[in-house]
Amino acid sequence: MNILDIIAKKEQGLELNKAEMEYVVMGYVNAEIPDYQMSAFLMAIKILGMSDKEIIDLTDIMLHSGEVLELGFDSVDKHSTGGVGDKTTLVLAPLVASLGVKVAKMSGRGLGHTGGTIDKLEAIEGFKTSMSLDELKTQVEDINVAIVGQMGNLCPADKKIYALRDVTGTVASIPLIASSIMSKKLASGSSKIVIDLKVGAGALMKTLDEAKELARVMVKIGHLNGRKTICVLTNMEQPLGYAVGNSLEVLESLETLKGHGPSDLNELVINLGSLMLALDKDLAVEKAIEYVQNALENGTGYEKMIELVKHQGGDITKIPVSTNILEVKALTSGFVKHIDALKIGELARRLGAGRMTKNDQIDPEVGIVLHKKIGDVVKQGDSLASVYYNKKQISELDVIDCFCFSEQPVVKPKLIYEIIK
Amino acid sequence: MNILDIIAKKEQGLELNKAEMEYVVMGYVNAEIPDYQMSAFLMAIKILGMSDKEIIDLTDIMLHSGEVLELGFDSVDKHSTGGVGDKTTLVLAPLVASLGVKVAKMSGRGLGHTGGTIDKLEAIEGFKTSMSLDELKTQVEDINVAIVGQMGNLCPADKKIYALRDVTGTVASIPLIASSIMSKKLASGSSKIVIDLKVGAGALMKTLDEAKELARVMVKIGHLNGRKTICVLTNMEQPLGYAVGNSLEVLESLETLKGHGPSDLNELVINLGSLMLALDKDLAVEKAIEYVQNALENGTGYEKMIELVKHQGGDITKIPVSTNILEVKALTSGFVKHIDALKIGELARRLGAGRMTKNDQIDPEVGIVLHKKIGDVVKQGDSLASVYYNKKQISELDVIDCFCFSEQPVVKPKLIYEIIK
Repeated sequence: MNILDIIAKKEQGLELNKAEMEYVVMGYVNAEIPDYQMSAFLMAIKILGMSDKEIIDLTDIMLHSGEVLELGFDSVDKHSTGGVGDKTTLVLAPLVASLGVKVAKMSGRGLGHTGGTIDKLEAIEGFKTSMSLDELKTQVEDINVAIVGQMGNLCPADKKIYALRDVTGTVASIPLIASSIMSKKLASGSSKIVIDLKVGAGALMKTLDEAKELARVMVKIGHLNGRKTICVLTNMEQPLGYAVGNSLEVLESLETLKGHGPSDLNELVINLGSLMLALDKDLAVEKAIEYVQNALENGTGYEKMIELVKHQGGDITKIPVSTNILEVKALTSGFVKHIDALKIGELARRLGAGRMTKNDQIDPEVGIVLHKKIGDVVKQGDSLASVYYNKKQISELDVIDCFCFSEQPVVKPKLIYEIIK
Repeated sequence: MNILDIIAKKEQGLELNKAEMEYVVMGYVNAEIPDYQMSAFLMAIKILGMSDKEIIDLTDIMLHSGEVLELGFDSVDKHSTGGVGDKTTLVLAPLVASLGVKVAKMSGRGLGHTGGTIDKLEAIEGFKTSMSLDELKTQVEDINVAIVGQMGNLCPADKKIYALRDVTGTVASIPLIASSIMSKKLASGSSKIVIDLKVGAGALMKTLDEAKELARVMVKIGHLNGRKTICVLTNMEQPLGYAVGNSLEVLESLETLKGHGPSDLNELVINLGSLMLALDKDLAVEKAIEYVQNALENGTGYEKMIELVKHQGGDITKIPVSTNILEVKALTSGFVKHIDALKIGELARRLGAGRMTKNDQIDPEVGIVLHKKIGDVVKQGDSLASVYYNKKQISELDVIDCFCFSEQPVVKPKLIYEIIK
């Protein structure tokens, strides 16, 4: 076999067999195939796509390129493809754990506009996000839930390929996204998988059609690997909830667990939570919704969060937020028609809430809290948002630029588009 | 400007402007853009193509990435896109020079099945292929012709990009081939350009349609740069002439200049030669054909070759050929239906006539001389070819495998498909 022949075969639109795919992927992992050949190969995939068989083969090769964890019990994993203000895991994990679902959640730090789930949890003073596999298993057996950083050498092929995709314009490819997400989910050992697939201007998938295709492929990969898998397509046209920034998002999550969350975040956790519960306990979804709503109303989800934070060494009373606050006031009156989620995310990153490069330090205290969302009525002088800043500052106009107003009433956008299983 | 945005723009099928193209090409030349980003960009071009404007811009950027030679006199350049047994330049350059056309020919060594024109000329003992630009000008002014290796720092961008294309499966792209050839032709200073564009199984362009498209683009680039440019589409389904190998091809060229050449090579040099002459002297092509045929018949082309070799230090009586000869005999009778030019080339390379890597030494003495071509009748036991070998050997069957026979008579293939100007 020969890398140039395989590149040519792919570039001519022919289907690669598993041996050829393995030759490329493992050759790249073992540094026998250089970056420049791999990036040409990835660009051919990005433009021409892959057959389902190729995607399934690629997932399997990346899955077995490293450790595959065995948890020894049934558990449900929840994954989000990422969006601005997405603190869903912080609410969902304790919420469903309080209802008997085991959640052994491995999360990333990520190079996003804000930190990943792990960065957000570390905004809680003392919270430890690294533990051994045995410690993870013990904690989940004890209290049903643990949230930790990446452990073990899972999918090294995906890690190396992802790093190259990131610098060669080959991230936004459905086959590459599907195989990347699913190889990691399969390697981390959960028996059931619920994926929150974000769609819209603030997400990787810009249109419902491409999101549906990605969902179809991921669900197929899950099923072929014996995992119950559900994809929920949700709106990411505006930030989720009001808070964007690490401590701010933890605080909003706690409010949501107490039953006082923003309506979109609340709706999302009820939907995703009930699917996780129904999947795990083989319940009708209507029944599961009832249980989840109860857990939000009677505070059992919140209590589980307190238990989780305590178990992982955190102090729930110490979640520092900056006291430097800039109020952003509306210059005109109208209805909010659009909020540019990516721009809001970018502003939060400029404040220090996210990383530009792997080695950047995150400032957990900073971020933006919106006071208006799409469909809300705004009067001139109303506060649109509060900016929490420390060393780095942004201007009122920066934030105002993220908003778009209409003189006509605007309908609130639908949050859940579709469930694919 | 940002390389990832430019890759994304290209990958989405949008047209790049010249500033963007220049940012990529010069960024790559200056090592600010790494190989792996450039190869992703090149693969996007290979799959999605380029607009004429993009190709013209790219050519101009590569042309001006290095020296642009000024010869100070009108001259005609001839270029071949390369094929097996292609010794056309060795015949054409002295032939048209003997008719008053100035030819200042810069040729490559190349990594082909046999050496490039320069390697072939160096099979003549003492022949020197390097000289200064001033020496080149003086020689062409004196005797109308010089054939030398690459000189000056012409098109460094093309050199660096070509080396990457060669190892990333992005060679066979019409826009990239067109800009690569034309930037070099424009930089080497000839005022008129005749291109022999090979088509068929043994060439880079496999079909007439893609060859026509490449020709159209190259002619357009030439005209836009004020150079009279003609593309001749010629058949490369079988090796050109009989000889494949460096000394063997020089000897066949000399025979052709004496009027005893193989019919296909003879036809080709008459066609290309008359086009060069007509272009340079503003003659009717019919008249030019007459002059060229005369120069072949009365030996003035041959005399010019003797003069050329002498001027560049070579000894025309010393063109060493191996005395180890393997006769390859036909196992069956029939008509030759097909000769696999690429396989013949590959066998010649295995004998040592060509290079696998840049640092390989060429053995000028070895190669293959065919005795039968497509359409010829063959009786069992007839000699199909003679293999001239030294250290490395190939088998009779290796050569026989390159031939395909038919029981029915086979029509000789057409050599000249089309002239595009």
